[in-house]
Amino acid sequence: MSRFMSKRFATLESYVPGEQPKTMQYIKLNTNESPFAPSNGVLEAVSEQGKLLQLYSDPDATNLVKEAARVFGVKESQILMTNGSDEILNFAFMTFGDSEHPFVFPALTYGFYPVFAKVNSIPYKEIPLKSDFSIDPADYHNAGGNVVIANPNAPTGLTLSLAEIEGILKTNPNHVVVIDEAYVDFGGETAIPLVEQYDNLIVTRTFSKSYSMAGARLGFGIANESLIADMNTIKFSTNPYNVNRMTMAAGTAALQDNEYYMNNCRTIVEVREWTKEQLARLGFVMTDSKANFIFAKHPKVSGETLYQQLKERGILVRHFSRSDIADYNRITVGTKEQMEALLLQTKAILQEVN
Amino acid sequence: MSRFMSKRFATLESYVPGEQPKTMQYIKLNTNESPFAPSNGVLEAVSEQGKLLQLYSDPDATNLVKEAARVFGVKESQILMTNGSDEILNFAFMTFGDSEHPFVFPALTYGFYPVFAKVNSIPYKEIPLKSDFSIDPADYHNAGGNVVIANPNAPTGLTLSLAEIEGILKTNPNHVVVIDEAYVDFGGETAIPLVEQYDNLIVTRTFSKSYSMAGARLGFGIANESLIADMNTIKFSTNPYNVNRMTMAAGTAALQDNEYYMNNCRTIVEVREWTKEQLARLGFVMTDSKANFIFAKHPKVSGETLYQQLKERGILVRHFSRSDIADYNRITVGTKEQMEALLLQTKAILQEVN
Repeated sequence: MSRFMSKRFATLESYVPGEQPKTMQYIKLNTNESPFAPSNGVLEAVSEQGKLLQLYSDPDATNLVKEAARVFGVKESQILMTNGSDEILNFAFMTFGDSEHPFVFPALTYGFYPVFAKVNSIPYKEIPLKSDFSIDPADYHNAGGNVVIANPNAPTGLTLSLAEIEGILKTNPNHVVVIDEAYVDFGGETAIPLVEQYDNLIVTRTFSKSYSMAGARLGFGIANESLIADMNTIKFSTNPYNVNRMTMAAGTAALQDNEYYMNNCRTIVEVREWTKEQLARLGFVMTDSKANFIFAKHPKVSGETLYQQLKERGILVRHFSRSDIADYNRITVGTKEQMEALLLQTKAILQEVN
Repeated sequence: MSRFMSKRFATLESYVPGEQPKTMQYIKLNTNESPFAPSNGVLEAVSEQGKLLQLYSDPDATNLVKEAARVFGVKESQILMTNGSDEILNFAFMTFGDSEHPFVFPALTYGFYPVFAKVNSIPYKEIPLKSDFSIDPADYHNAGGNVVIANPNAPTGLTLSLAEIEGILKTNPNHVVVIDEAYVDFGGETAIPLVEQYDNLIVTRTFSKSYSMAGARLGFGIANESLIADMNTIKFSTNPYNVNRMTMAAGTAALQDNEYYMNNCRTIVEVREWTKEQLARLGFVMTDSKANFIFAKHPKVSGETLYQQLKERGILVRHFSRSDIADYNRITVGTKEQMEALLLQTKAILQEVN
C-alpha cells in the first residue's frame, strides 16, 4: 500500500474472483455462470437502451422494481436493486454492522463475507461447519450479532429448511439476518415469504446465475421497507445511479420472460443430478448440492491435480487452496454436452493416475 | 432510520440527484447530459455484448483500460475504471480519508463531496469561495488534509489553471489531491500530464457528459500506479465486477470514436457561448462557465420562479435551494434548437414578470 492509504486498511486482503480467461477458449465451469443465453426480450431491451445512453438511468429503478414486486410477491418498497448482489451484500454489512454489531457467518461459505466485514471495519465471528459440511442452525440462535447465511451455501450447495431459517430469525430479534439466495432457484426454499413477518430479515438475490445475466451486474435485496430505506440511504450516499440503463431494462425483460429462465433452471437441476450419478460411478464423493454447481473430491486424485489437469485439457473448474477443502473442486453445472466433456476428460485423468 | 441501522449514520443525509422525469416529455437541461446520441460503434458494441450477458465481465476491464491508456497517454497501471465517476470519488474518499486525514474542498462545489465524507466517517472542511464564486488556490496550499477540487467547478463552471493546480499539489506532498474533471472536455485544462510527476495526484473523469454515456455509468481515475493499486484493493473488497460487459464495450468503442465526441464537445462550447450572449442581452448575470452548463441569475426574477415557470413550459433546469445561490439556475447546454426554445420561453417569462 502507498503511504497515503488509510491505516485502517493495513491488513485488508481483497477478494479474489474466479479466473476470467481472456484468450484461450475453455469450457468454463468455474464461476457458476449459466450455460444459457439471455432471452430475446433481454437482447431487444439492451439494443433499445443503447440508443438512449446519453440520458441518466432512473435512480429508483422504478419499472424494474415494479416487475420484481410482481414476480416475487412483495411490495415495491421492500426491494432495492443493486450493481450485482455483491453491492447489496456490502450495503447490508455497511448499514447494519459496526464495532458493537459484529457479523456472524459460517467458516466455510462465500469467501467475500469476511472481506465485506474487514473493509467496513466490522468485527466478525466464523462458526465452523459440521464435519459433513452442513450448517447447524442452532449455532446461529442468539448469535450475538448480525447473521449472514448463504442458502444454498457455497461452495457446498447444502441447504437449510425454511423452518431452520425461521428459528434463526426468531432467536435474533435485535439483529438483522441476511439470507443470501444467489443459488436458490436450483433447489432451495426461499425465505421471501418470511419478510412480512420478520422485520430483521434481508433476502439477497442475483440475476447472475438463474437469469443468465452475470455480465450485466444486477442483484437486489428484499426486506421490510424500513431496512430497505436504511440501505437506500447508503446507496444514495455512495452511488445513486448504481444500476445502468441497459442492465435495468435487461432485468425487467428477464422477469417478463420468467418462465424461460425457470425452465433453464429445471434443465440445470436435471443435468446436475445426472452428472452427480456419473461422478459417483467414477468414485467421486460429493455433497448433496442444491445449487448450480457440484462440490466433489476423488480419493485417488488431489483437488489441485484434477483442477490443473482439467485446465490443461481445456476445462476450467474452481479449486480453493484452503486446507479444509483442498481435496475438492467446485464444478459449475453447464449443458449436458459440457458435462459429458468434463466426464470424458475426468475419466482419462483418473486412468492416468491409476 | 430503523433500530438496526448503525448509529454512525444517525445524521447522514444522502445526496439528492437532479430530477429524472418518468412521464411528461421535457426539454431536459437539468442534469448536464449530452444532447448527442452515442456513436454507431457504441450501439454495435452494446448489442453485441447483450448476447454474452451470461458470462461475467472482466474485473480488470483490460480492453477498456488499454484503450483509455492510449487516448489519455498514460500507463495501464495508472487507470481504474468504475461504475460512474461517483464510484471513483467514493473510492478516493474511502481509501485515503480517515479521522486523522480529513478532506478539504470548496463550500460551493459538487454537492456529493460532503456526503462521501460523512458516509465514510471522514471529517471535512469547506472553504468559502471568493465573492465572484472563484476558488482562491492559495486557500488550498498546505491544506492540512486531502484536497478535492472540481475543475471546472460545479455549479459555477469556473476553472483553475494548470499552474494553480500544480501549486496545490506541491504544497500538499503528504496528502492526496483529487481533481474532478467531469467537465474538463468543455474548456478546462487537464491535470493528467502531472500524474507522472506528482505521486499525490488523482484525476477523476466520467463518460457521462462528453461521451454521451450518462445512462451507461462509466467513470475512471488516473493516478500514480501506487494510488491506483490502493483504490483497486478497495474495489476488489467491495465490488470486483463493478463495470458490466455492455458498459465496458461501450466505453471502449467510444474511445475508438474519440473524434466524434470531441467534435460534439466543440459544438456544445459554441452553443454555450452563443447562449451566454443571448442571455446577457436579456439581462442575465453569469459566471464565465467552461463546462457544459451555464450558471445564471436575472435581477428581475428569482431563481426559484424561473425554474418553476420554465418547468411549467416544459423545460427543466436545475435550481438549488441553498441561500447563497438561490438566485441562480444551472442550465445544461443542449442543442442550439433546445437553447432557442429555452430563450423563447425565458423571454416570455421575463415579459410576464415585468
